[in-house]
Amino acid sequence: MKNISIIGGSGYSGAELLRLLAKRDDIAVKQVIAHTYAGTVISDLYPDLYGRMDSVFEPIDALSNDGVDLIFLAVPSGEAMDIIPKYIGESVRVIDLGGDLRLSSPEAYERYYGKPHSNPGLLDESVYGLPEIYRNDIAAARLIANPGCYPTSVILPLYPLLREGVIGSSGIVINSLSGTSGAGRKAVLDLSFSEVNENVRAYRITDHQHIPEMRTVLDNASGRRVSFSFVPHLLPLTRGIYTTIHAPAEESVDERKLNEIYSDYYGSEPFVRLVPRIPRIKDVAGTNYCDIHCTVQRETGQVILLSVIDNILKGAAGQAVQNMNIMFSLPETRGLL
Amino acid sequence: MKNISIIGGSGYSGAELLRLLAKRDDIAVKQVIAHTYAGTVISDLYPDLYGRMDSVFEPIDALSNDGVDLIFLAVPSGEAMDIIPKYIGESVRVIDLGGDLRLSSPEAYERYYGKPHSNPGLLDESVYGLPEIYRNDIAAARLIANPGCYPTSVILPLYPLLREGVIGSSGIVINSLSGTSGAGRKAVLDLSFSEVNENVRAYRITDHQHIPEMRTVLDNASGRRVSFSFVPHLLPLTRGIYTTIHAPAEESVDERKLNEIYSDYYGSEPFVRLVPRIPRIKDVAGTNYCDIHCTVQRETGQVILLSVIDNILKGAAGQAVQNMNIMFSLPETRGLL
Amino acid sequence: MKNISIIGGSGYSGAELLRLLAKRDDIAVKQVIAHTYAGTVISDLYPDLYGRMDSVFEPIDALSNDGVDLIFLAVPSGEAMDIIPKYIGESVRVIDLGGDLRLSSPEAYERYYGKPHSNPGLLDESVYGLPEIYRNDIAAARLIANPGCYPTSVILPLYPLLREGVIGSSGIVINSLSGTSGAGRKAVLDLSFSEVNENVRAYRITDHQHIPEMRTVLDNASGRRVSFSFVPHLLPLTRGIYTTIHAPAEESVDERKLNEIYSDYYGSEPFVRLVPRIPRIKDVAGTNYCDIHCTVQRETGQVILLSVIDNILKGAAGQAVQNMNIMFSLPETRGLL
Amino acid sequence: MKNISIIGGSGYSGAELLRLLAKRDDIAVKQVIAHTYAGTVISDLYPDLYGRMDSVFEPIDALSNDGVDLIFLAVPSGEAMDIIPKYIGESVRVIDLGGDLRLSSPEAYERYYGKPHSNPGLLDESVYGLPEIYRNDIAAARLIANPGCYPTSVILPLYPLLREGVIGSSGIVINSLSGTSGAGRKAVLDLSFSEVNENVRAYRITDHQHIPEMRTVLDNASGRRVSFSFVPHLLPLTRGIYTTIHAPAEESVDERKLNEIYSDYYGSEPFVRLVPRIPRIKDVAGTNYCDIHCTVQRETGQVILLSVIDNILKGAAGQAVQNMNIMFSLPETRGLL
Repeated sequence: MKNISIIGGSGYSGAELLRLLAKRDDIAVKQVIAHTYAGTVISDLYPDLYGRMDSVFEPIDALSNDGVDLIFLAVPSGEAMDIIPKYIGESVRVIDLGGDLRLSSPEAYERYYGKPHSNPGLLDESVYGLPEIYRNDIAAARLIANPGCYPTSVILPLYPLLREGVIGSSGIVINSLSGTSGAGRKAVLDLSFSEVNENVRAYRITDHQHIPEMRTVLDNASGRRVSFSFVPHLLPLTRGIYTTIHAPAEESVDERKLNEIYSDYYGSEPFVRLVPRIPRIKDVAGTNYCDIHCTVQRETGQVILLSVIDNILKGAAGQAVQNMNIMFSLPETRGLL
Repeated sequence: MKNISIIGGSGYSGAELLRLLAKRDDIAVKQVIAHTYAGTVISDLYPDLYGRMDSVFEPIDALSNDGVDLIFLAVPSGEAMDIIPKYIGESVRVIDLGGDLRLSSPEAYERYYGKPHSNPGLLDESVYGLPEIYRNDIAAARLIANPGCYPTSVILPLYPLLREGVIGSSGIVINSLSGTSGAGRKAVLDLSFSEVNENVRAYRITDHQHIPEMRTVLDNASGRRVSFSFVPHLLPLTRGIYTTIHAPAEESVDERKLNEIYSDYYGSEPFVRLVPRIPRIKDVAGTNYCDIHCTVQRETGQVILLSVIDNILKGAAGQAVQNMNIMFSLPETRGLL
Repeated sequence: MKNISIIGGSGYSGAELLRLLAKRDDIAVKQVIAHTYAGTVISDLYPDLYGRMDSVFEPIDALSNDGVDLIFLAVPSGEAMDIIPKYIGESVRVIDLGGDLRLSSPEAYERYYGKPHSNPGLLDESVYGLPEIYRNDIAAARLIANPGCYPTSVILPLYPLLREGVIGSSGIVINSLSGTSGAGRKAVLDLSFSEVNENVRAYRITDHQHIPEMRTVLDNASGRRVSFSFVPHLLPLTRGIYTTIHAPAEESVDERKLNEIYSDYYGSEPFVRLVPRIPRIKDVAGTNYCDIHCTVQRETGQVILLSVIDNILKGAAGQAVQNMNIMFSLPETRGLL
Repeated sequence: MKNISIIGGSGYSGAELLRLLAKRDDIAVKQVIAHTYAGTVISDLYPDLYGRMDSVFEPIDALSNDGVDLIFLAVPSGEAMDIIPKYIGESVRVIDLGGDLRLSSPEAYERYYGKPHSNPGLLDESVYGLPEIYRNDIAAARLIANPGCYPTSVILPLYPLLREGVIGSSGIVINSLSGTSGAGRKAVLDLSFSEVNENVRAYRITDHQHIPEMRTVLDNASGRRVSFSFVPHLLPLTRGIYTTIHAPAEESVDERKLNEIYSDYYGSEPFVRLVPRIPRIKDVAGTNYCDIHCTVQRETGQVILLSVIDNILKGAAGQAVQNMNIMFSLPETRGLL
């Protein structure tokens, strides 16, 4: 039995962690911190958990890391970097679901997140928690930066092809479509049903904060500077991300070759499925899968990659539990199938 | 040419008024007041009006009623009762789209709106702006209380039947289903897409503020105290209200009789349609119609009435323009078909 | 290890059965029959099952009941009554998810389903599979009529109150709101997204085929003929049923009393939750719960009951698995929490 | 007064034509043909037209072109090419809303529509009805090929930039997001609410039939072969198209330059709006506008173009009425604002 605590249990990712962990008999949830809701019964906020998670949210002052094996942080970006140093320890590992630890340079953090990083040392220590690429590092890590939802859907299809050099490293165009839960549990007019339903809009078309996170991993895959353009869109959809990527194909590439590469990289991955048909969000909603499909467009010389994930699961809480399973040397799929 | 101003132009009803009036060449919009957005270009807030309503929202201090024939108020409940006395005049008439003038007694106001009424005299002066019932009074009125959205959908089907005594005055059950725009343009977590989509909930099941408004008109129709139960529900829908009413049928009533009564009352009404089939919200969305359908259930002795409206049009701004047309002795349907 | 087969695996209830059973290691799915899709790989039709259910749908001729402990039928109404006699046996038990076995009289069947019942004897043998009421009969039964989705949401809140005589047996008004998946997996224009989205409509307002099913159980609870009116509505929602019931309160009834009764009946039920707040579909979506809430409206003397279920789970496949667990003497919640 | 008839009045485009024309007092609708619905009252099929369009659909045999000035065709692709020769005449002009006349070569037609063109001569005669580009030709034409919805949203933003040579003619990536009404009024499982809601999928990622239509106009604009990749996606949305285009910027291009070009081309266009902010579908839904926004991404050297239209209006029936207005020398915006 492992003991975990959650800081930031009142958002959508925190609630999904609670749902995933409530089903486990090998994991005990010791404390759930949510400062705005301190004193509120968890199942009052998330009535679907009624009868299964009826303890109260606690203030952060009440957090004890005695006997705790791992702390999940699911707090707004900018808060984790100040909280982590207080609670992390030899035996207390941390998985941060926010953006504070995902970049390698404090400069990039400041540029994309709009404020200086208060603990740049954490950037060096943390491991990027994408198991399909960094599984071994994750197993040994004390501090995990759980990937963003868009980057998960972008990196998984692009990484093997850039690494093998079968697509060009510039001229890559990425369009992503996201459900509203990706924006978090917020009282914001632009996220209200009346504004989102029967509507679509692109946003942050040049400077989304997930761009540097993608770039770091993709540059590393390619061994060169990867030039890509990323446009996210908000849809009338609660959960899910649909990513459509156009990348210039190297000359001799065909679908068979691409599928071989994917098979080499992901053939034994439990949560990446190479699918023969055009994927749909519905195929992965409520699951920890990332479905990937590729096509080579002869006329334009473009490779078209389509990938789908559930943004709250493979894009957040599901991937965090996958990382936890790895860190605790448990079967990686436990509680996720 | 008539001159109008709007106080509270930034909400959904205010914006719909702007859309309806932007098409008119017999109505000039002099000023649009919206204190939170003072200085903002109207079409920046409502980009669909780009190129057609590019003036700015003004603060209320800037309001002048010189040469203004009519002021629409579309402000949150509780604000109109303090604003109206300052601007209403012999030649400046007022249509209030909120709830401040709809009730006949200050006690009922306080009970349902949770605070004392600051100008009870206004309650006596105002005319309830449901044209199908109070058309003559509206034509002559200086001050109109534009009906609530639920009451419009409830009173129109019930009024003729209660008046003619063909349904009982107690044991009436009203279930209404509303889109989210009825709750207004608000940054509220419970109205966010992530919370509303793939969800349904009843709310204010015993004390909705529209109850006394319905009661006043229905008691008056019946000549007796009408006893009814009203449960509103919020749906994943932007616009529209669906009202399903069960009422005990008096003995000899059949559908032919009910349709005769409706025909007498509404046969020449431009915006009430008695429809032979089960109505749908889609049939009236974007229009000022109220569609009504009735069935007598032999086995239970119940009359089932179904009615649908667009909550922002016949339930708010459309009905307000219909009232304005009547007050200005213009064709009642102008700008509404 | 128990062996089961499914006839009618290609509809939404059949697919949900597959999802629920794919997670079980104590249940083996031997054959999945779906005549229109015979030869198709299951996960081609339901790509979310890709990698987990990659066998093919078989034609019904291929069905063998050798070694099969239980057959689920999820076929359109009218088909099961001819199929069951061929396959049921001493050791082969049957759970039918359709309407063929739910009524006690062949006359009622013919009236509501529009054709004669071909095997009235099955009506006598079958047990109505609502575990909270008929658990003991279910455990011993060879043939289960799995309840309809609307009846599950209606009977669970009404049964205890009618049985205890705290509400009147006439003047009951039931309004139910359903998602589209309740209508099945069908190419029907009225169920297309373009027709359903931003729309609401009532349907079958006097003769829904679930009425006699409710009546049988409710009459039995009351000991008298129960008179109720039932109006179903179709919403822009995929999954879930919201039921709002108005029933006349007997004199001395208050909420405390109602909650005591509910607690007596359902206090130890794993899948019925008496909730202190207004329930929402989101609270039960994806689960096998039925959440119930009650209020007594003093002014009108009405009891208002609200209940919510996931129509495909507690309203179909989830309840079927609950019944299967009972029949196999397995923990009732296995695979359902 | 001009007389028009509609062949194919029962689909979404046909119904929208009826809505647009029902408001006109300068246009008389003589006959509405819809063979599957011959004999049905129009407002029975489209109840929103109840009281306003209560004539019946007629079979095509009943069509007379006596005194008819113009016929709109809104029939499935492949039918118009056989119907047009029978009815077009010196004084009877035709606007075809389908794909039969849009391509310049019968070979392209056969490749993308999957069957030979039966009247290639029509391809030579017809004018592509995009008023912002071909207004003069439209005014004089007897036969108009009304553009497809995707092409309208793609050509309007790309045409001026290709013509002026400020973007490259290869490496253009087009992602379009469409509501379901674009697929027509059809009983198709993949378009059912249960399948579309909470789902997204790309489709026809290499061979959409709108590709050659875009290519013809864009090649013509560029003077060179334009190479682009087009991926359409289906969203849980009824109406609207969102198009996101990435194109390589020529060296010296900046946003000021692009906006100047757009201003030259579209500054006086009544239905194209160059908007300073990221456009949204809601800004154009229910209107005949196309909103366009451009950004130059310095780091990648890409121009990002965003455009939105209502697929049934500017993408079909609205544009058809705009063309009719031009052909009849009426004010181009009549009935469309």
